[in-house]
Amino acid sequence: MVLIKNLELGEFFEGFYLIKSVELRQTRAGKDYLAISFQDRTGTISGNIWDANNKAVEQFRAGKVVHMKALKELYNGMPQVNKIQLRLATDSEPNNSKDYREKSPVNEADLREYVQSIVFKIENGTWNRIVRSILKKFDKEFYEFPAAKTNHHAFEGGLAYHTTTMLQLAEKICEVYPQLNSSLMFAGVLLHDMAKCLEFTGFENTSYTLRGNLLGHIVLIDEEVSKAALELGIGDEKEDLLLLRHCLLSHHGELEYGSPIRPQIMEAEMIHQIDMMDASMMMMETATANLEPGQFSQRVWALDNRNFYKPKID
Amino acid sequence: MVLIKNLELGEFFEGFYLIKSVELRQTRAGKDYLAISFQDRTGTISGNIWDANNKAVEQFRAGKVVHMKALKELYNGMPQVNKIQLRLATDSEPNNSKDYREKSPVNEADLREYVQSIVFKIENGTWNRIVRSILKKFDKEFYEFPAAKTNHHAFEGGLAYHTTTMLQLAEKICEVYPQLNSSLMFAGVLLHDMAKCLEFTGFENTSYTLRGNLLGHIVLIDEEVSKAALELGIGDEKEDLLLLRHCLLSHHGELEYGSPIRPQIMEAEMIHQIDMMDASMMMMETATANLEPGQFSQRVWALDNRNFYKPKID
Amino acid sequence: MVLIKNLELGEFFEGFYLIKSVELRQTRAGKDYLAISFQDRTGTISGNIWDANNKAVEQFRAGKVVHMKALKELYNGMPQVNKIQLRLATDSEPNNSKDYREKSPVNEADLREYVQSIVFKIENGTWNRIVRSILKKFDKEFYEFPAAKTNHHAFEGGLAYHTTTMLQLAEKICEVYPQLNSSLMFAGVLLHDMAKCLEFTGFENTSYTLRGNLLGHIVLIDEEVSKAALELGIGDEKEDLLLLRHCLLSHHGELEYGSPIRPQIMEAEMIHQIDMMDASMMMMETATANLEPGQFSQRVWALDNRNFYKPKID
Amino acid sequence: MVLIKNLELGEFFEGFYLIKSVELRQTRAGKDYLAISFQDRTGTISGNIWDANNKAVEQFRAGKVVHMKALKELYNGMPQVNKIQLRLATDSEPNNSKDYREKSPVNEADLREYVQSIVFKIENGTWNRIVRSILKKFDKEFYEFPAAKTNHHAFEGGLAYHTTTMLQLAEKICEVYPQLNSSLMFAGVLLHDMAKCLEFTGFENTSYTLRGNLLGHIVLIDEEVSKAALELGIGDEKEDLLLLRHCLLSHHGELEYGSPIRPQIMEAEMIHQIDMMDASMMMMETATANLEPGQFSQRVWALDNRNFYKPKID
Amino acid sequence: MVLIKNLELGEFFEGFYLIKSVELRQTRAGKDYLAISFQDRTGTISGNIWDANNKAVEQFRAGKVVHMKALKELYNGMPQVNKIQLRLATDSEPNNSKDYREKSPVNEADLREYVQSIVFKIENGTWNRIVRSILKKFDKEFYEFPAAKTNHHAFEGGLAYHTTTMLQLAEKICEVYPQLNSSLMFAGVLLHDMAKCLEFTGFENTSYTLRGNLLGHIVLIDEEVSKAALELGIGDEKEDLLLLRHCLLSHHGELEYGSPIRPQIMEAEMIHQIDMMDASMMMMETATANLEPGQFSQRVWALDNRNFYKPKID
Amino acid sequence: MVLIKNLELGEFFEGFYLIKSVELRQTRAGKDYLAISFQDRTGTISGNIWDANNKAVEQFRAGKVVHMKALKELYNGMPQVNKIQLRLATDSEPNNSKDYREKSPVNEADLREYVQSIVFKIENGTWNRIVRSILKKFDKEFYEFPAAKTNHHAFEGGLAYHTTTMLQLAEKICEVYPQLNSSLMFAGVLLHDMAKCLEFTGFENTSYTLRGNLLGHIVLIDEEVSKAALELGIGDEKEDLLLLRHCLLSHHGELEYGSPIRPQIMEAEMIHQIDMMDASMMMMETATANLEPGQFSQRVWALDNRNFYKPKID
Repeated sequence: MVLIKNLELGEFFEGFYLIKSVELRQTRAGKDYLAISFQDRTGTISGNIWDANNKAVEQFRAGKVVHMKALKELYNGMPQVNKIQLRLATDSEPNNSKDYREKSPVNEADLREYVQSIVFKIENGTWNRIVRSILKKFDKEFYEFPAAKTNHHAFEGGLAYHTTTMLQLAEKICEVYPQLNSSLMFAGVLLHDMAKCLEFTGFENTSYTLRGNLLGHIVLIDEEVSKAALELGIGDEKEDLLLLRHCLLSHHGELEYGSPIRPQIMEAEMIHQIDMMDASMMMMETATANLEPGQFSQRVWALDNRNFYKPKID
Repeated sequence: MVLIKNLELGEFFEGFYLIKSVELRQTRAGKDYLAISFQDRTGTISGNIWDANNKAVEQFRAGKVVHMKALKELYNGMPQVNKIQLRLATDSEPNNSKDYREKSPVNEADLREYVQSIVFKIENGTWNRIVRSILKKFDKEFYEFPAAKTNHHAFEGGLAYHTTTMLQLAEKICEVYPQLNSSLMFAGVLLHDMAKCLEFTGFENTSYTLRGNLLGHIVLIDEEVSKAALELGIGDEKEDLLLLRHCLLSHHGELEYGSPIRPQIMEAEMIHQIDMMDASMMMMETATANLEPGQFSQRVWALDNRNFYKPKID
Repeated sequence: MVLIKNLELGEFFEGFYLIKSVELRQTRAGKDYLAISFQDRTGTISGNIWDANNKAVEQFRAGKVVHMKALKELYNGMPQVNKIQLRLATDSEPNNSKDYREKSPVNEADLREYVQSIVFKIENGTWNRIVRSILKKFDKEFYEFPAAKTNHHAFEGGLAYHTTTMLQLAEKICEVYPQLNSSLMFAGVLLHDMAKCLEFTGFENTSYTLRGNLLGHIVLIDEEVSKAALELGIGDEKEDLLLLRHCLLSHHGELEYGSPIRPQIMEAEMIHQIDMMDASMMMMETATANLEPGQFSQRVWALDNRNFYKPKID
Repeated sequence: MVLIKNLELGEFFEGFYLIKSVELRQTRAGKDYLAISFQDRTGTISGNIWDANNKAVEQFRAGKVVHMKALKELYNGMPQVNKIQLRLATDSEPNNSKDYREKSPVNEADLREYVQSIVFKIENGTWNRIVRSILKKFDKEFYEFPAAKTNHHAFEGGLAYHTTTMLQLAEKICEVYPQLNSSLMFAGVLLHDMAKCLEFTGFENTSYTLRGNLLGHIVLIDEEVSKAALELGIGDEKEDLLLLRHCLLSHHGELEYGSPIRPQIMEAEMIHQIDMMDASMMMMETATANLEPGQFSQRVWALDNRNFYKPKID
Repeated sequence: MVLIKNLELGEFFEGFYLIKSVELRQTRAGKDYLAISFQDRTGTISGNIWDANNKAVEQFRAGKVVHMKALKELYNGMPQVNKIQLRLATDSEPNNSKDYREKSPVNEADLREYVQSIVFKIENGTWNRIVRSILKKFDKEFYEFPAAKTNHHAFEGGLAYHTTTMLQLAEKICEVYPQLNSSLMFAGVLLHDMAKCLEFTGFENTSYTLRGNLLGHIVLIDEEVSKAALELGIGDEKEDLLLLRHCLLSHHGELEYGSPIRPQIMEAEMIHQIDMMDASMMMMETATANLEPGQFSQRVWALDNRNFYKPKID
Repeated sequence: MVLIKNLELGEFFEGFYLIKSVELRQTRAGKDYLAISFQDRTGTISGNIWDANNKAVEQFRAGKVVHMKALKELYNGMPQVNKIQLRLATDSEPNNSKDYREKSPVNEADLREYVQSIVFKIENGTWNRIVRSILKKFDKEFYEFPAAKTNHHAFEGGLAYHTTTMLQLAEKICEVYPQLNSSLMFAGVLLHDMAKCLEFTGFENTSYTLRGNLLGHIVLIDEEVSKAALELGIGDEKEDLLLLRHCLLSHHGELEYGSPIRPQIMEAEMIHQIDMMDASMMMMETATANLEPGQFSQRVWALDNRNFYKPKID
């Protein structure tokens, strides 16, 4: 059983993999074949089943776990698997699709515990009550949803993982800069991307909801906070409420990135900066993860199209 | 009694004027004087009272109407009044400050009637109820507030004047393009700048409120619509609600102008375009209003720093 | 006889279609085939003739009307026609290629009448004479040419259709803003894109002429006006001539869009704005025309790469 | 008799100078004084006449040559002349204002001879005839007008000086790159700024004409060439005519600098580049002309706000 | 003895202050006066000595400590001191100018100790040796120089203060992201601004050196590292040397901010981000330091011209 | 024996060509074939060997000279060769690969002589010694390396060819502008791209070295000059050394093109401008080289995506 990231060029292998996507195509000569993307926790690889008979088309659908014997080769410079022998995994074999998807490196229980410990540290009543109210509403989704469709943290549980890493950064930075209001930092970080739970349709093959498309998650979290305040009887001119909404609305940092207002208090600026910091760390990590030391990565569009070097020295 | 726009260079004049602003300054040689800006419906002009004794300082305050005799001259190329004789207007004289401020060229009753006629044309129930609810809440402010602090429509009643001119444009354009949903156009135009009533402190010497500064009028109108929908029992995923919010949120057209989302339906794009059209017409009108035919205006910063020509031919 | 926009996936159909373009290609295995794009008034669709014998190559040329029986399927997510049976349309069948091309939704006679009525409203003699002179010169082309190669109004008669829609907008807007000189608005709108008749080679498979490429239609209309003025004995410093040329030269609004000068009179700015308005309406219309309600369009490059939503409600 | 560039700080001097500009101002305390800018061939310096009696106001007007005794000092870091004794120059003294204005460092006769020699080298008939025709029309202005209002070559004769320096560059560069069409280079350079003669009002205290403002010199030279071609019977689709117009229209290099089209032939690109080269050389020269070695200049706005260093070594 | 930040409007005060700068100016009426900027640890304030006799000019020079009695007032909205009585501080009074300058809030001994502790943690030999070598060369300047001329950390000791705050951030962030090479982070942070010691002339009234102007501190630190490597016998193709130079060269993050190369390893990106973080914290801190709660600051040019709000709540 | 640029469409030909690159690919049906790019001095053309047996794969490798008989045809609008008969060139045939590569149009001996003559003209001792020292170090590479990977002068010897063309321009321009320091111009031009010898791996199939990627050639030449100065005992604050380094560091003209500093002396600005001039001439030359008169080229990305016209007239 070989993991995808360990497959060697020119060698045959076998193992269990998840069919991530499959498409029925025709060769120029008019013959049907199946173009399949295989996946496990360590990566993805493509291959074609040239004999796309009816049974094959019916069996090999996205979401199915299969046993595959095949040869890894290069096609136009990109790895693919050829000479494929494929069958569905049986019930006695490891056929749970969840085991093959990339997901958050930390388990949910630990994340929940850490989030709770941070909520305790939010001393301001307005912020504490609003955070609790919204966390409760999205109790399930917050730990399942990705933080993005593509780019960074685009995996199951990515939203909570991204948020908690930012909470750690916020804790550290408040130690260096005691002038920062740590309660506001924590409340702002916890909620900043929460409305991704409304913007996305779910955690598998996610896409945008209609309100995600027409309003966006920044407006949607502001709506949630406004409504929570209304329900909790918090006045709409109260300074602490305005400060929290300001941090959430401005967390993209620049108008051209979709914030309707730019950060105008220290905590808003810092929440924006640690959001960028974690997003860029995750993207650089992903870009260089499968490189050999001494190699450069592909260009990363969301990081100004830079490519990144993986040093040989430790 | 001479209007400010009719004052002749090098000639003495007298009349009643409003003190728009006044500042106590010192000459380099350490002597106090009052730097005053005078105003009537037709414009403003500056002048200095060199003998700033206590009585003068006390009497000549912003908001007071005065009788002035003076000489109009140029100082470094800018008109100012010199050799000023000043006294407060008495009760038997025209001393109502409201009569000296620039204001909307249409009277409030006509505006109210027109707005009502448009509300009747909003056929969709969600939009109609939300518009009525919010119009009611800002019933007074909508007809008093300016549409902007500086730039365009920065006068009492400017908000309603700008909004109703845009409604006229919307009506006309819906005749040319029947594919536009006129109900949505009307609802969107009516509400697009309504939260200026929350963003500004009032209609005299207006400045930004705290929520105006930290959230901005685009976010504030979205909050009002969300709350109105909650109170009216309109579901937060209803398409017509989302479309209206989308039109309001995107009406600045570009992210860099403070919209968190760009127009993605026809009506949103058109509301944005007629907003720009009326703002630019008003700014060009203001820039060229006091020019002689054949002259160029000052540069208008908000119109890409262009200056505008007033033709000689009609 | 099924229109292209009504073809159903997975179903056989037959009907008459125009060959819009055809290319002789080779499979990787070295076999010739014909890649054809079929067209009718409602859209286009592609398909391949795998047996590209000499007779086929000779018969099936661009501009020919054919009778086709075929099956609509998807190839890599894009619709195409397969299992094609093809023959030329006979003289007794509907074989006039003009009937299969997209064209202006209004007929030429109505457009001509409307244009004439507007010319009557141009009261200034200079503008009236120049407009008549140039309209006469391009009497045929103005009603045949497209308004653009791709983007908006890229169909036969598109130039006149775009121009007359703008004239309607100009009429309406002059009602809202009586300070606009309607004669100048009409003259400017009528001529603004007229030199597309010199910039493009024609209305079928149009491309750029050499002077279109090296000078562009803005410079070319300025040349036409200058020459007309010379012939009509209108002095080159006359203000009304300069104003008209200014409106034409500045109608792209910004230097970076190819205007050598930015709008500096009200009418020039408004002509630019209604040009943008009609172009964007037409592009949004085209982008959403074939969508189901509730769907988003493809991204539209010329509208800042936005995609547009077609609402479910009316 | 001391030249302005040789005046020493803290020393009295006397000599003849031209009054470049004069303004009647008031001190804050209400007293009239004259603010004068004095000029000779080597520079300008400012000073105030504190006793602005009627006679002084009448005598000391712009364009008058005066005899001045004064002291050079610094005022807020800028040189000015104080303790001024002033009288008009008499007829027996050097009172010709032309002798005090900055002007082209080469004399007109030499420039004319050089321009003629270049015209002889334009071998293509179309270009040669058009150049001769336009040179003849602007025979006087071409040698008198400046090349710009401010920035570079803003002095009498500056247009011809700038043009002939560019011709020298064109000659040299055609030696390095024989693939360039030298006739087109020469014709393009000779005409590129010629319509400054229509854009500016003259060579003293120049400002923009109405057509300069509303059309600009790029459009105006295109008009001149089009009309010359019409008169000379050169067809408006002839390639050589189009190439010349293309070079002239594109000589600002970028759309945002006012060219309606970008250079698309080699010669157009090179004319643009040598135009930039000569303009930047002249601006750097001016910026550093009066510096001591080892000093940095003021920032030069038209050169991206850079400041320039004058080295100590030769 | 009142600190400048505690001076009350409209009240007389007395105390010792440093003359930060002084200029001899003339009133428009020709009378000399001294324009002085006074300073202590808490801020600066301006005032004029209207009787600028010879003795005053001689005594009151920049760098002198004076005893002042005066009245704090507003002049055109800006605080200044009037009715000044001034004398030099005597030897028995607190006349050490160092005591009046703003400086780093941490003392030098603590900073030195902390820096040493970090150097011990740089485990890679190349980096450790280069850091020691350069720290030794700038042993004195590193603890005296400011980090910038204006903007952030523009005070004595600012360079070391900024660097050590960044070191703290680096330590914390390496805890959150163990994949970062902490030795490289520390070496990069320690050296990143070190060449400010070559770019600036010193720590009082600092300006740019010639090499500061012509090369800049990024190039200068690269030169220092290259030379140190040459002296220490470290090959110029060694990967660890290249990585360190890359971090230093890219620490401005973007080419347009003067880095000749953008960050292409994780550590370079993170050094850039914590540099921005500390600079923006310091600028926001400075901008809001003297505000009342509930006020907005002036606009901060280096933070995209934003102004910052100081909340009322803690 | 036909040169590639002279091959006619639809005709068989034969001759000797170099295999520039070769790739083993599979048809969609799974059959191996060789995709080969053939090259001679005049251009490149592609073709496929459909029978990729073991012997073929072994023989036909990049760098081999072959004898080919084949037919030139179009495939999707691009020229390719079909019906290929291929064999390796024998020892008695023209099989030296160097004879088939594009290279500098001037021979190395002439270039060396010209470079020497220029070195003699560098009168300043610092510059002369540094230039000699660095020229000596890169004596071989300077005449072999390309000036760029793609874009302009991307051929063997391109670096020296580009440099010497710029030297010719520098000589000419110093004649027009005697105020330029020709010694500095020559030294700057000679060294400006010299570190491409360190940035690239070589002159065949060149790629970037690690230091090329992480530091770039601008930083690398600055390192070379600094070290040369150290070895030659030239002080690091000497003005002439700083001026030369400034010219080299700023030769890309703008920060966003990778210069850490912008040109701030005349010579630096001029070196930048003639660098741009030669690069753009070479790119326009390349783009239009194989066009028929009257055609437009492909768009050239590095010239703002313009396409260029090749006139019909000479």
